[in-house]
Amino acid sequence: MKVVTAIGEMRSCSRGWKSAGRKIAFVPTMGFLHQGHLSLIRAARKAGDVLVVSIFVNPSQFGPSEDLEAYPRDLDRDLEFCREERVDAVFAPPEEEIYPEGFSTWVEETELSRGLCGAARPGHFRGVATVVLKLFNIVSPDLAFFGRKDYQQFKVIEKMVRDLDLPVEVVGLPTVREADGLAMSSRNKNLSVGERRQALCLRRALLRAREMVSEGETRAAAVRQEMEGMIGREPDARIDYLEFADPETLKPRENLRPGDLAAGAVFIDTVRLIDNLLL
Amino acid sequence: MKVVTAIGEMRSCSRGWKSAGRKIAFVPTMGFLHQGHLSLIRAARKAGDVLVVSIFVNPSQFGPSEDLEAYPRDLDRDLEFCREERVDAVFAPPEEEIYPEGFSTWVEETELSRGLCGAARPGHFRGVATVVLKLFNIVSPDLAFFGRKDYQQFKVIEKMVRDLDLPVEVVGLPTVREADGLAMSSRNKNLSVGERRQALCLRRALLRAREMVSEGETRAAAVRQEMEGMIGREPDARIDYLEFADPETLKPRENLRPGDLAAGAVFIDTVRLIDNLLL
Repeated sequence: MKVVTAIGEMRSCSRGWKSAGRKIAFVPTMGFLHQGHLSLIRAARKAGDVLVVSIFVNPSQFGPSEDLEAYPRDLDRDLEFCREERVDAVFAPPEEEIYPEGFSTWVEETELSRGLCGAARPGHFRGVATVVLKLFNIVSPDLAFFGRKDYQQFKVIEKMVRDLDLPVEVVGLPTVREADGLAMSSRNKNLSVGERRQALCLRRALLRAREMVSEGETRAAAVRQEMEGMIGREPDARIDYLEFADPETLKPRENLRPGDLAAGAVFIDTVRLIDNLLL
Repeated sequence: MKVVTAIGEMRSCSRGWKSAGRKIAFVPTMGFLHQGHLSLIRAARKAGDVLVVSIFVNPSQFGPSEDLEAYPRDLDRDLEFCREERVDAVFAPPEEEIYPEGFSTWVEETELSRGLCGAARPGHFRGVATVVLKLFNIVSPDLAFFGRKDYQQFKVIEKMVRDLDLPVEVVGLPTVREADGLAMSSRNKNLSVGERRQALCLRRALLRAREMVSEGETRAAAVRQEMEGMIGREPDARIDYLEFADPETLKPRENLRPGDLAAGAVFIDTVRLIDNLLL
């Protein structure tokens, strides 16, 4: 397994694979890999001839008061995982390789990025779109794999690829969960034992929302109120947002129907967790 | 010569050339080709194995009160020129192929785009950067050719290519001029005979600025005042901007030195003309 830190070297690897007619499958990550990432890596392993994983905690998608510093990192452990999964190359550039001094070009999706996490984290999806476009240009993948836990991110990237005519097929895979249902996230590592117990409140509230809608409830406000009550019972939980939206346009919905997106973000003390499901 | 209107067909042409190891040279244009374009096309013909010219009047780089409708067009004449220059493919997509309904992803360079034409035409370089990135993704050129009459555009595209890791070499070529010195521009077509005579005022003022600086003048304000006087003598001329800037950062300069960029935009009645030189 190659571990590549320079853009030029990564690009020349990819150029070699391309000219040999090999199909490149790519999994971009921020590292601290968990079972969710492994499900992407395994699907990519099957779909491509060559498998590249990137590990880069992208500073431009974190706001000034967010958890860039606290984001968990363990490159050695990540490389071990990647070796076991027969990854061909890990691209783990230093920050200055991706954002050299004077960097000034940004990619912004302006519709799907507006609500949900985009409203709660201004600039977040600009950072995501920019780094993903850069990684695509460096790695030249035929296929790229993303988790649907970050549903809005997946839709924004899909849209960017379509709008900017990128020659990449974007694949979204289902959220992988702990035994009790908590969505796998690198940030779960930052939960204390007591917080870990409370962290499930968002998943439970989303399941309750689905139940209410399946029983005929259509009023978003009523469902949200019920969810707020459930989450409010946890002492360290603070709702960032709970929204219902069209699963394609991500426009907010006031009248719910089965198939709508329900998505939320909840802080458990300082740890921000997200989850979603289709009602 | 192929004339291609669909993205998919253009992409499959390029893919074929690439896999045959042929080097693609690309000249993106808004059509109504003149000698300036032809100098780009001829340089591209020599530099690459395959030569692609695009013809697309890009609506997203025109402001709401600008001359999108009045921009001159003559596709048949352009195709004739291209045939004579042994162009391999002309990519001339309809607007809805480039900007389908719901298009929502934009590329923006935020530093070099600020002043000069960027200040005078808000959103202009966002439109330029977005369409050029799209065209690069569709055509997959190894080399792309731009005129230095649009000096700021050239620098913005160079910066975008560097920041977004695009695998393209950007080449800038000198401004081609009429016998009397007027910079070639598709918009010159829209000048009446009387306006055509007045149009030279910007070029003359820029040459006078260079003369003043070579004689030791360093005060931008003094040079600008002299230029304003020269342009002000033409009855139909109205200055959009006259600026002096660092030729790399495009930051404004108050104290001039040889090598600085002098750039201006002047309306001759409704026709906006630009020109620049290094002092």
